[in-house]
Amino acid sequence: MNDQVVQLSYALDTFYFLVMGALVMWMAAGFAMLEAGLVRAKNTTEILTKNVVLYAIACTMYLLVGYHIMYSSDSGGFLPNLGFLLGTEHSLDDALSNSNDYYSARSDFFFQVVFVATAMSIVSGAVAERMKLWAFMAFAVVMTGFIYPVQGYWKWGGGFLDAAGFQDFAGSGVVHLCGATAALAGVLLLGARKGKYGKNGAIYAIPGANLPLATLGTFILWLGWFGFNGGSELKVSNVGEANAVAQVFVNTNAAAAGGVIAAIILAKLWFRKADLTMALNGALAGLVAITAEPLAPTALGATLIGAVGGLLVVFAIVSLDKLKIDDPVGAISVHGVVGIWGLIAVPFSNTEASFGAQLLGIASIFAWVFIASLVVWGILKAVVGLRVSEEEEYEGVDIAECGMEAYPEFNVGKK
Amino acid sequence: MNDQVVQLSYALDTFYFLVMGALVMWMAAGFAMLEAGLVRAKNTTEILTKNVVLYAIACTMYLLVGYHIMYSSDSGGFLPNLGFLLGTEHSLDDALSNSNDYYSARSDFFFQVVFVATAMSIVSGAVAERMKLWAFMAFAVVMTGFIYPVQGYWKWGGGFLDAAGFQDFAGSGVVHLCGATAALAGVLLLGARKGKYGKNGAIYAIPGANLPLATLGTFILWLGWFGFNGGSELKVSNVGEANAVAQVFVNTNAAAAGGVIAAIILAKLWFRKADLTMALNGALAGLVAITAEPLAPTALGATLIGAVGGLLVVFAIVSLDKLKIDDPVGAISVHGVVGIWGLIAVPFSNTEASFGAQLLGIASIFAWVFIASLVVWGILKAVVGLRVSEEEEYEGVDIAECGMEAYPEFNVGKK
Amino acid sequence: MNDQVVQLSYALDTFYFLVMGALVMWMAAGFAMLEAGLVRAKNTTEILTKNVVLYAIACTMYLLVGYHIMYSSDSGGFLPNLGFLLGTEHSLDDALSNSNDYYSARSDFFFQVVFVATAMSIVSGAVAERMKLWAFMAFAVVMTGFIYPVQGYWKWGGGFLDAAGFQDFAGSGVVHLCGATAALAGVLLLGARKGKYGKNGAIYAIPGANLPLATLGTFILWLGWFGFNGGSELKVSNVGEANAVAQVFVNTNAAAAGGVIAAIILAKLWFRKADLTMALNGALAGLVAITAEPLAPTALGATLIGAVGGLLVVFAIVSLDKLKIDDPVGAISVHGVVGIWGLIAVPFSNTEASFGAQLLGIASIFAWVFIASLVVWGILKAVVGLRVSEEEEYEGVDIAECGMEAYPEFNVGKK
Repeated sequence: MNDQVVQLSYALDTFYFLVMGALVMWMAAGFAMLEAGLVRAKNTTEILTKNVVLYAIACTMYLLVGYHIMYSSDSGGFLPNLGFLLGTEHSLDDALSNSNDYYSARSDFFFQVVFVATAMSIVSGAVAERMKLWAFMAFAVVMTGFIYPVQGYWKWGGGFLDAAGFQDFAGSGVVHLCGATAALAGVLLLGARKGKYGKNGAIYAIPGANLPLATLGTFILWLGWFGFNGGSELKVSNVGEANAVAQVFVNTNAAAAGGVIAAIILAKLWFRKADLTMALNGALAGLVAITAEPLAPTALGATLIGAVGGLLVVFAIVSLDKLKIDDPVGAISVHGVVGIWGLIAVPFSNTEASFGAQLLGIASIFAWVFIASLVVWGILKAVVGLRVSEEEEYEGVDIAECGMEAYPEFNVGKK
Repeated sequence: MNDQVVQLSYALDTFYFLVMGALVMWMAAGFAMLEAGLVRAKNTTEILTKNVVLYAIACTMYLLVGYHIMYSSDSGGFLPNLGFLLGTEHSLDDALSNSNDYYSARSDFFFQVVFVATAMSIVSGAVAERMKLWAFMAFAVVMTGFIYPVQGYWKWGGGFLDAAGFQDFAGSGVVHLCGATAALAGVLLLGARKGKYGKNGAIYAIPGANLPLATLGTFILWLGWFGFNGGSELKVSNVGEANAVAQVFVNTNAAAAGGVIAAIILAKLWFRKADLTMALNGALAGLVAITAEPLAPTALGATLIGAVGGLLVVFAIVSLDKLKIDDPVGAISVHGVVGIWGLIAVPFSNTEASFGAQLLGIASIFAWVFIASLVVWGILKAVVGLRVSEEEEYEGVDIAECGMEAYPEFNVGKK
Repeated sequence: MNDQVVQLSYALDTFYFLVMGALVMWMAAGFAMLEAGLVRAKNTTEILTKNVVLYAIACTMYLLVGYHIMYSSDSGGFLPNLGFLLGTEHSLDDALSNSNDYYSARSDFFFQVVFVATAMSIVSGAVAERMKLWAFMAFAVVMTGFIYPVQGYWKWGGGFLDAAGFQDFAGSGVVHLCGATAALAGVLLLGARKGKYGKNGAIYAIPGANLPLATLGTFILWLGWFGFNGGSELKVSNVGEANAVAQVFVNTNAAAAGGVIAAIILAKLWFRKADLTMALNGALAGLVAITAEPLAPTALGATLIGAVGGLLVVFAIVSLDKLKIDDPVGAISVHGVVGIWGLIAVPFSNTEASFGAQLLGIASIFAWVFIASLVVWGILKAVVGLRVSEEEEYEGVDIAECGMEAYPEFNVGKK
């Protein structure tokens, strides 16, 4: 009889993992639509291509090496063990004898692999409209196979950040700050789009070509985030765990709502317009902010954490533009700046967290990802070049890189 | 041992609720895409903004006050108890000792909160292309925090309609008729779009700008409806309940299919064209029609209930236009007229239902929502105005309200 | 107590089926978006209409006759039993006494019905841009009510192919090859689009009007495929089954990723461009390839099976064009050619499979579907005609068939 209960419990937890993982996989579509909506028409095919291919690369590289690096390295350590492929699946005997083997090891891989893709998706938006496609893909190989797994190991693989008490429930740091940091390094080496910044500090808006797509992308990400945060509880099969997953769903939703409301009100007061792109970024900021700790706060607390994220993202987007850090979709602001906010906010609700450990985690992730990315981007710049030619940028990277327009019949005026 | 079975059962029912709730949340994206596809290009950013923000408002207002009003009021009563925020979560002891506490209270909130957002989403389409954005948002605050919860309490919170035997499984009345009624009150005060109705009863078609979006929105809603109806069984964890949820899935799908087929055939016979928008409205009509009772009919019965809905929606859309009630997306026809049909059809398959109780429910919901909405819209009209200026309407509300075009590069001719 | 475990197990398996089925239903939206993105603007409304209506027809015809044909016919046989509607639902006693009745019969129907719709969706893309809408719908009635269920019975209903040891886990043959074969028969009778093939073997590219839609459609299909393959394990409620479902998820994802990478690299080498449409077809090819056996291979094996699919699809698309078989979306290549590859690859990992049985299955499905389809298409051609007039084709089928443009404001140049 106990046997049957263990079997059912194992099945439920595995199924939960797979459903949550499928929702996270769906975020790949969300990033693709968000980014395709926020770039100009002439650069749309290329960013779609990047999003499809980076997901494929992430899944393959993490299968080949990343998962092993992240989850087979020494407890409490700093240096990862290199290695290949997946381990063995759990048997019924494992499940009966080892309480850690309470769900399928393959469902764990599935859940983890879609997280890597998320981190990489963050990068593609920030470097949009001027980066060489194949340089980007080469970076994706290293990022998803090595850079991400190393810092993932530090926290979720039981490395030194975990030992130091760093708290990051679903990855405000491990996923979002990581992705944003790699993006920042790329943007700094790549430079701004032509025509973005003028003389005397002038900043020119470059509107996205298709706002329904950007809105769709945001809703997809919002939905996918229930899997992202909800699955990170890692178990659902008893009363306490089920309650925890439900609280995470409620808080994730509440934080996104808070982010929207804060961002749209701030945009209305500041810019005198109900700026849709700020509302969308507000939603995403709320989601990123709550990701570090979606369980401990009350729903009202989550709303407030998200709302602060929504305010921060508006300020961050404006500030990065003043610094001439050109991020066409606001990815560095949403995932980096607000990711840091989410990590810092953890100790407000989670008594196991400390500001010191949170800052150590932020500094470690940022330092590792920034330096490693800078090296990889730098090598790529030296060897193949990061940036398309001025003429290609003017004509749009779609024709240059992909040989096809995204909207060939829509009579698009070059902008 | 019993303890473990209760735990597993609690976990499964909670997980079921969360997955179904996530599908309903996804309907927010469906409404956004449907409405964005059916308005003109110049009003697209604004309706996207409304859809994102109304969802955020609904989630926040229902958290703050609506959920308490709806589910903490007196059994069998008419007047709700005002109050704030959520109650306590269930413990293992609760689950063991009280058969009503068989799943997470937070998962219940999550499921309920996305229903409120659905009701509010219905409104946004009907008032599209000419309403002031901030007036709409103000209405959303009252609707989701107070108007919806009061009539929700009457039925699902155990109020007088429930005591009177009114049957509304998943909300043909509580959600769809409610939303459509609030929309009708708004449209009556707001008036038709400029250029919609001419002299001598002339009616001018104003085609939607992006039919793939409208189709996508319909498919999203269709998918989401499995959560909407399937989750409303409220339990899945034994043979009888699992069978019931499966029947609901089958019937929901069958009704939508019936609605499509009926609507497209009628449109072909009547208009001599395979009218896509009527096919889409037929799908939604089938879904709304079956929502009042998706469990009791056979699959064939469900197909027929949906088909009648598909016929009704075509007639309703044509009739409302003759009455000069201008509803750009057909929301009042789909959710109101067909919602009433769904409620009236319940006694055909559910022997516990009576026509008298159904009519009482329809009349009560309509009267309350219509009068309350008329008062709120009326106050807003007097204080801030409901309608944008003629010039803003001509130029499109996107620039006026949001400061950005939805498709800035697509060379859109003003229509 | 055993009673409670059986109840929970039944509930979990039923819920799993319903969630997987909902994901497969979502594939209908995927096909609609993919096809709408790959046709010209002037033919977009019509293909959207076809996708919505074919799904409705499939659901209704399979309910009326198809399900009975497929699952109530004699074991090991060739000729199906004709019959109507669904059988009885399982009771608790059934579940306790018969280990085959371990989940809701209605959830089984729901899962099966969305598969039929998938098969039919494959057809719509291949005959796009020149077929009469109502001829297509008439074909859909016969295909989903009869042609598909007969060969479905041969394998999944326990007919002669199943008895012969033919292995087709989730339908590389029963669904994908079936759909592609029906499409091929239609295309051969229909002929190529005007302007596709010129003198001296010239082939003119006819670019799709909206690549973000095509990309969205591909991501939707990718997500839906987790249900398609994952649900085809048919059970999740113990350790072995849960592990199997997890392996299927991992392999499905890995194969799609392999398909993308192989196709984009081949396209880059061959065409010198990172061809987005080939990347998308590569993803779909990977998915089709793994569908015949997503359980037995390792994740790395699945990646390779998908990668071969991704190479094959590029060659197939080019080859079909040389044969002047005009398939606007590449459906015959993706689902037919790669479906065959998937079936042939089964014996490499599944020791129960033999090449002989696989070839028998391929030949049987192809012969039946091709001949039956050719007869039906032929009758339709003789009676009502398959093809729109030259003028209608030039003007676009949207106006001729549906009376409305998909993008009325986007200033689309006729192409």
